[in-house]
Amino acid sequence: MSFVEVSVELGCAELRLSRGKVNAINEEVVDQLHAEFEGLRGDESVRAVTLTGTGAFFSFGFDIPWFYEFAREDFTRYLTKFAELINYIFMYPKPVIAAVNGHAIAGGCMLASACDHRVMVTGKAKISLNEITFGATVFQGATEQMRYWVGSAMTQEMLFSGAMYSAEQAEQFGLIQQAVNPEELKATVSQTVDRFARLEQPAFASLKKLLREPVVEGAARKEADAIEEFVNIWYSDGVRENLRKIEIRD
Amino acid sequence: MSFVEVSVELGCAELRLSRGKVNAINEEVVDQLHAEFEGLRGDESVRAVTLTGTGAFFSFGFDIPWFYEFAREDFTRYLTKFAELINYIFMYPKPVIAAVNGHAIAGGCMLASACDHRVMVTGKAKISLNEITFGATVFQGATEQMRYWVGSAMTQEMLFSGAMYSAEQAEQFGLIQQAVNPEELKATVSQTVDRFARLEQPAFASLKKLLREPVVEGAARKEADAIEEFVNIWYSDGVRENLRKIEIRD
Amino acid sequence: MSFVEVSVELGCAELRLSRGKVNAINEEVVDQLHAEFEGLRGDESVRAVTLTGTGAFFSFGFDIPWFYEFAREDFTRYLTKFAELINYIFMYPKPVIAAVNGHAIAGGCMLASACDHRVMVTGKAKISLNEITFGATVFQGATEQMRYWVGSAMTQEMLFSGAMYSAEQAEQFGLIQQAVNPEELKATVSQTVDRFARLEQPAFASLKKLLREPVVEGAARKEADAIEEFVNIWYSDGVRENLRKIEIRD
Repeated sequence: MSFVEVSVELGCAELRLSRGKVNAINEEVVDQLHAEFEGLRGDESVRAVTLTGTGAFFSFGFDIPWFYEFAREDFTRYLTKFAELINYIFMYPKPVIAAVNGHAIAGGCMLASACDHRVMVTGKAKISLNEITFGATVFQGATEQMRYWVGSAMTQEMLFSGAMYSAEQAEQFGLIQQAVNPEELKATVSQTVDRFARLEQPAFASLKKLLREPVVEGAARKEADAIEEFVNIWYSDGVRENLRKIEIRD
Repeated sequence: MSFVEVSVELGCAELRLSRGKVNAINEEVVDQLHAEFEGLRGDESVRAVTLTGTGAFFSFGFDIPWFYEFAREDFTRYLTKFAELINYIFMYPKPVIAAVNGHAIAGGCMLASACDHRVMVTGKAKISLNEITFGATVFQGATEQMRYWVGSAMTQEMLFSGAMYSAEQAEQFGLIQQAVNPEELKATVSQTVDRFARLEQPAFASLKKLLREPVVEGAARKEADAIEEFVNIWYSDGVRENLRKIEIRD
Repeated sequence: MSFVEVSVELGCAELRLSRGKVNAINEEVVDQLHAEFEGLRGDESVRAVTLTGTGAFFSFGFDIPWFYEFAREDFTRYLTKFAELINYIFMYPKPVIAAVNGHAIAGGCMLASACDHRVMVTGKAKISLNEITFGATVFQGATEQMRYWVGSAMTQEMLFSGAMYSAEQAEQFGLIQQAVNPEELKATVSQTVDRFARLEQPAFASLKKLLREPVVEGAARKEADAIEEFVNIWYSDGVRENLRKIEIRD
C-alpha cells in the first residue's frame, strides 16, 4: 500500500504524504519516502522536489498507536531509519521545498525542517516539537537541524516548552520562510520551487553540502547513543502510560 | 564558613550566593557551589534549582584582591575548577534558573549564563563580560556558552566592547529571557521555576544533553590551552597593575 | 607592480586595494595582501589595520578574465592561497576593520567578512556572495565565516539567492556593523579603528582566538575537498561558458 503519492510536472516532483487523516509516520512511510527520494535523485529532468501532506495535516508525527506494540529492537530499527531519512533529505543534492499544508508536529516538524525552505499555511495549523509534553525526547540530528534554522537558544525554547506555533509565529523566529493564506499555498510554493529549480544544479548541490555537511557529521557521531536514550525513555513506565492514551483516528 | 545559602521549598532548591557586599567568587565559593549542586543532583524530590545572589549583586565576578597574592599554579587550579563548574551547571540534568537580582559581571555573568533561563531585574543592575576592560581574557567554555545564547557575532560584540548591559538591553539580544521590575523578581522566578519543575525529568535531561553536549565537548578540547593563556595574560605586568587597583569593599 | 597601497598613521595601518577600476583579485593581490599583513603583524607600533578599496569598489571579487586561461593546477594553487588568506585575516591577532567604500562582491565580500568589523557606505554599493548566479560555488572557510556573522539560515539565504544587498539591508541582518553615508565613511572608520586600537592587545588577541579558532579549525578539515569541488565546477562546460561572458573593464 502506498502512503506517498508522487507526481512530476515541468521538472518538479511532488511527494504527498497520504496516510489516514493525519499522515502519521510509520516504518512504511519512512521506507517509501526514502525510496521515492532515491528514485528522483538520479533523474536529471527533476530539478526540485516538493514535500507536502493531505487534508489538515502535513504530518502529525509518529503513528504512536501503531508503534505501541513494537519490541524495543524493532522500534530502534525504525528510529535509526527515521534519523537517517531526515539527514538524507537535509543533504539531498536537489532543492526540497516543504509545502506545509497543515499541522507539522514532532516527527512531522522534523520532516519539514529537513527541507530547504518551508511555506506554511496560516490559520489553525501548528508546527511544534512537542515531544516533552508526553515525556519523550528527540534525536541529535533533529536538534542540530533545528539549531541550523533558528539557533541554539530558540531550539531550546521550542524543545523545553513543546509549544505549538502558528505559521506567523514560526516565520517570526525563522523556522518558516513564508507564511501564506491556505488559498495562496499552491501558487506560492510553485513560485518558490520555480526559483530553486532555475539554480545551476552543481553549484546548488555544492553550496548545500558546504552548509549542511558539518551539521550532519557533528550529529552523526552522537546519534546511536541518542537513539538508545530515546528508546530507554520511550519504554519507561511513565511514557508508556502517556503513549497508551494517544489515539490517532484514521 | 558558608558562602552559599541553601533552602528547599516545594521541590525547588534555591542556592543563594552570600559573600560580602558583591558576592565575589573565590575558590571556596566554587567548591561550595559545586558541592551543593552535587548534593541536590541525586535528590529526586528536588525538581529544579534557582541560583541567585544577595543585595545589589548577583555576583561581581572573581574576588580579584583575594587572588592577587595567588601563585600561578594555585590560580590555574582555581580557574580549572571554575571552568569545570560552569560546564557542570550548563550540563546539570535538572532545570537551573538564574534569578539575577543585581549586577552579574565577568565570572558572575558566566555563572548566570550557565543556567537554563535568566530572569533579571531592571534598574541599575548590569550584566557584562567586561574582562577586556582590565586586560584579561575568558575561557573557551564561557565563550561557547555565550555563543549558545546570543550567537557568534553578539558574543564578539560583548567580549570586544566589555559593555555593561541593562536587563532590558540583554533581553533584546537574547542573553536575558525575562527582564522584570525588582519587586516582581520573586514571583516571576517562582512561576518560571514551577513551569520547568513540571517537565518530565528524563525527557528534560535528555533534551538538555542533546542541546548542550556538543557545545561543552567542543570547548573542552581547548580549555587547558585557554586556561594557560588566561594565566599568562593575568600575570603579565600590565594586567597585574590593573588588577592591583581593583578593590572590592566588603 | 603593487596593488596594495600601505599607509600608517598614528599606529593604525591602512591597506588599500588598488587594481584597475574594480580592484579585482588575482594571485598577485593575494600574495601582496598576505605579505603586507605579515609585515605589520610583528610591528608593535601598529595597533589596528584597515582594509579598504579605491573608487566605487571595495572589490568585485576574482579577476575572472585573468583566471580564464589558467590551468586547473594553477587555479587550485590560487584558490588554496585565497582560502588561506581569508583564514589568516580572520585569525589575525590585531583588529582588522573593513572600510567598505563600494561594492564587495563574491571574493570581495569574503575579504570584508574576514575582518572584525565592517563599516559600509550607503547608496549604490552592494555586498553579495553571488557565486550561484554564474554557477560557481564557495569555500568551506568562507561559509563558516559567514555563518559566524549571520547564522546558518541567513548564510543559506545569501548563498542560494546570490542576492545583492545594500549596506542598510546588510546591517539589518548583521553582516555590516555600521552603514554610513559615503561622506561619513572616513570619520566613522577612524573612530571605530581608534576604539579597537585602544583595547589591550594580548586580551584582544586571546578573545579573538577563543571566538575564531573553533570556526577556522572546523572549516580547515574540509577545505581541500571543498576546493577540489570548487575547481571541478569552475571548469565544467556550463560555468566556463558563463565565465567567458564576464568582462571586467579596467
